[in-house]
Amino acid sequence: MNGERGFIMSRNIIVGQSGGPTSVINSSLAGVFQAAKDLGASKIYGMRNGIEGLLNEQYIDMTDYLKTAMDVEILKRTPSAFLGSCRFKLPAVEKSPETYDKIIEVLRKLDIQHFFYIGGNDSMDTIKQLSEYAADKNITDITFMGVPKTIDNDLAVTDHTPGYGSAAKYIGTTIKELSRDAVVQPIDIVTIVEIMGRNAGWLTAAAALAKGDDCEGADLIYLPETVFDIDKFLAKVEEIHKTKRQVLVAVSEGVKTADGKYVCEAAATNMKVDSFGHKQLSGTASALANVIGDKFGWKTRPIEFSTIQRCASHIGSLTDVNEAFLVGGQVVKAAFEGATGKVGIYVRVSNKPYMMNTDIYDVKAIANVEKTVPQEWIINDGTYVSQEAIDYMSPLIQGEITPYMVNGLPKHIKL
Amino acid sequence: MNGERGFIMSRNIIVGQSGGPTSVINSSLAGVFQAAKDLGASKIYGMRNGIEGLLNEQYIDMTDYLKTAMDVEILKRTPSAFLGSCRFKLPAVEKSPETYDKIIEVLRKLDIQHFFYIGGNDSMDTIKQLSEYAADKNITDITFMGVPKTIDNDLAVTDHTPGYGSAAKYIGTTIKELSRDAVVQPIDIVTIVEIMGRNAGWLTAAAALAKGDDCEGADLIYLPETVFDIDKFLAKVEEIHKTKRQVLVAVSEGVKTADGKYVCEAAATNMKVDSFGHKQLSGTASALANVIGDKFGWKTRPIEFSTIQRCASHIGSLTDVNEAFLVGGQVVKAAFEGATGKVGIYVRVSNKPYMMNTDIYDVKAIANVEKTVPQEWIINDGTYVSQEAIDYMSPLIQGEITPYMVNGLPKHIKL
Repeated sequence: MNGERGFIMSRNIIVGQSGGPTSVINSSLAGVFQAAKDLGASKIYGMRNGIEGLLNEQYIDMTDYLKTAMDVEILKRTPSAFLGSCRFKLPAVEKSPETYDKIIEVLRKLDIQHFFYIGGNDSMDTIKQLSEYAADKNITDITFMGVPKTIDNDLAVTDHTPGYGSAAKYIGTTIKELSRDAVVQPIDIVTIVEIMGRNAGWLTAAAALAKGDDCEGADLIYLPETVFDIDKFLAKVEEIHKTKRQVLVAVSEGVKTADGKYVCEAAATNMKVDSFGHKQLSGTASALANVIGDKFGWKTRPIEFSTIQRCASHIGSLTDVNEAFLVGGQVVKAAFEGATGKVGIYVRVSNKPYMMNTDIYDVKAIANVEKTVPQEWIINDGTYVSQEAIDYMSPLIQGEITPYMVNGLPKHIKL
Repeated sequence: MNGERGFIMSRNIIVGQSGGPTSVINSSLAGVFQAAKDLGASKIYGMRNGIEGLLNEQYIDMTDYLKTAMDVEILKRTPSAFLGSCRFKLPAVEKSPETYDKIIEVLRKLDIQHFFYIGGNDSMDTIKQLSEYAADKNITDITFMGVPKTIDNDLAVTDHTPGYGSAAKYIGTTIKELSRDAVVQPIDIVTIVEIMGRNAGWLTAAAALAKGDDCEGADLIYLPETVFDIDKFLAKVEEIHKTKRQVLVAVSEGVKTADGKYVCEAAATNMKVDSFGHKQLSGTASALANVIGDKFGWKTRPIEFSTIQRCASHIGSLTDVNEAFLVGGQVVKAAFEGATGKVGIYVRVSNKPYMMNTDIYDVKAIANVEKTVPQEWIINDGTYVSQEAIDYMSPLIQGEITPYMVNGLPKHIKL
């Protein structure tokens, strides 16, 4: 593959991070860095704020910041995107050829042979566009590769995504803790926990992990994959309340009613739209709490996990952190062997015992595709998830990675 | 002391938990249980839902649930109140003598010699009332003792309160993680974190612990001890924004404007009042985010730590958990030696190195008194806390107590 490059004496790489943060996007960055270093890269550049920074020629030499093996370990344990991120949507080539020219110009200036982009659906579109552009222009000496990332777990092809396991572990842990809190007073109370996930309910499904012999867990779990009916919801809560005074509901921020409206739209006055055209959601828990309060007069407690759920690396999943590191390295190795227009993926070999491989796959199959929770995993008339879903999620939250605690708090690394 | 009891062959105790949950109220319960067991108590009863349950004769034999040393260790690591809690305000004796008669009747029925109540200001009032009632009625064979508890750290006399250190550690940790998250996008954004504390800003002050060479921390910290001026707040945010695009604000839920109104009152339509007459606060962060958005048009992100901050025992402070256990034991020992109408307290011997003793103190000095953050610790025109405040808080978050992780999640114990 890419045999025309022949024998290269030295190689430079550049890596960027894009989209929303996760607890392990830096572990993938560490994996890219370590693999590139181990495979003899000369220069390892990092884009500041992804493509948006690159277009402004903002980049760093990562070896200036990662000097020791311990620095790399701290990076693995640091949430969010060390290099900074962006939500820059690469325009189509025909609309803005100068954008592509500029990117290639900066890459040429730095003598880059390998370009890596760590991100989700939208970021994989960037890799797709750049690799197609390179093929069209017969640019064969720069490869463009993607490293998957998203807490939402909504990428196609890959078994799961780096970042999901740690967010799921945070959600399971916090729902367990909130379950203890929710039952403490002898009063009628409905606790409603709002969890991230616009169109895919993977994160909200993780609330089911909390249930066990030491925890009641969530009584109701609502994913955006099914239509949300407010009257049926009220009836369900009323039914559960007949046997217990404290009810705990986990609900995705993205649940919609039959008319296609977000449940929170009734509550939100001005709903903003981000640069990808996504609506910014919030207030689903508050909206439902108001409905419950009005109908039954019970105390309610709406709780939003908000951005905490994507950056709580102090309760990160060891499985997730390690896999994220591995897939970063896998993609670098493939690139150094000539691959381009590909993205790293996870392949589950076995559920019990849990066995997982990394591989690479055509980015076109992944870019701009959203993978949602299978309908057959959503049970009890759209109010819970199946044992099969739990068996799928459970291996991904196993193991703990202890932050380096300094002066009582986790040690991080920053630019 | 209490020499008239003479030599008792066996003693029964009862213990209850009251008020809002913390991460370590169960560690104090474990301390009470272990000390009572070690000192030869015959029966160790637990009130279900505090005094409210006791009045309905709802109690358990704790040895039915805590059979092994490991059970006690799991209890120390379980957030919220194992026995259940209540917000029952004991009426004055003259208003409801039958309530007191009933309590004594139930205690007599169980042959209780020692009554322990773990709680905050309001719960210490219960101990005060009961011990005064016992003295008035010449009931000398039952002691009434308090064990302090509150994440709010607002109890008088004691150097700090059990529960505060773990909540502060959660706040410091999460502000660190949110700081990484807040700066990730190259956009104008104001993150506003709302932290518990009606009248005392101890918890919000803990946001200052996050700042260090690896973390920007909070740019502004607002406690309820100073008057909140919305125009001055906007001016401060605008000033900070001149040098950085991402601003992080920590604000107490209880901040009030000069006219005595809660900042969130403008946003809240129906503000409810709990059984102690406290207003239920929420929405301060949202209210301020709206004000910022309206004025500057920047993106805002209001985040409420809500009840998560009081039950996140997975990131509990080892110092806090151990001290909570110790003070529980201290109070039992004192009661067995005849003390009544007293509460356990912490006495700081030294700040650097941190050295702390437990002691007991007259409950009358503590009941119904709120200790707020000293004005001299609030600096920068009411927008930050001093190094002295940081030196006071820092020892309380030291050390980690790892939950027993089972299947990827913390193991708890429940009734």
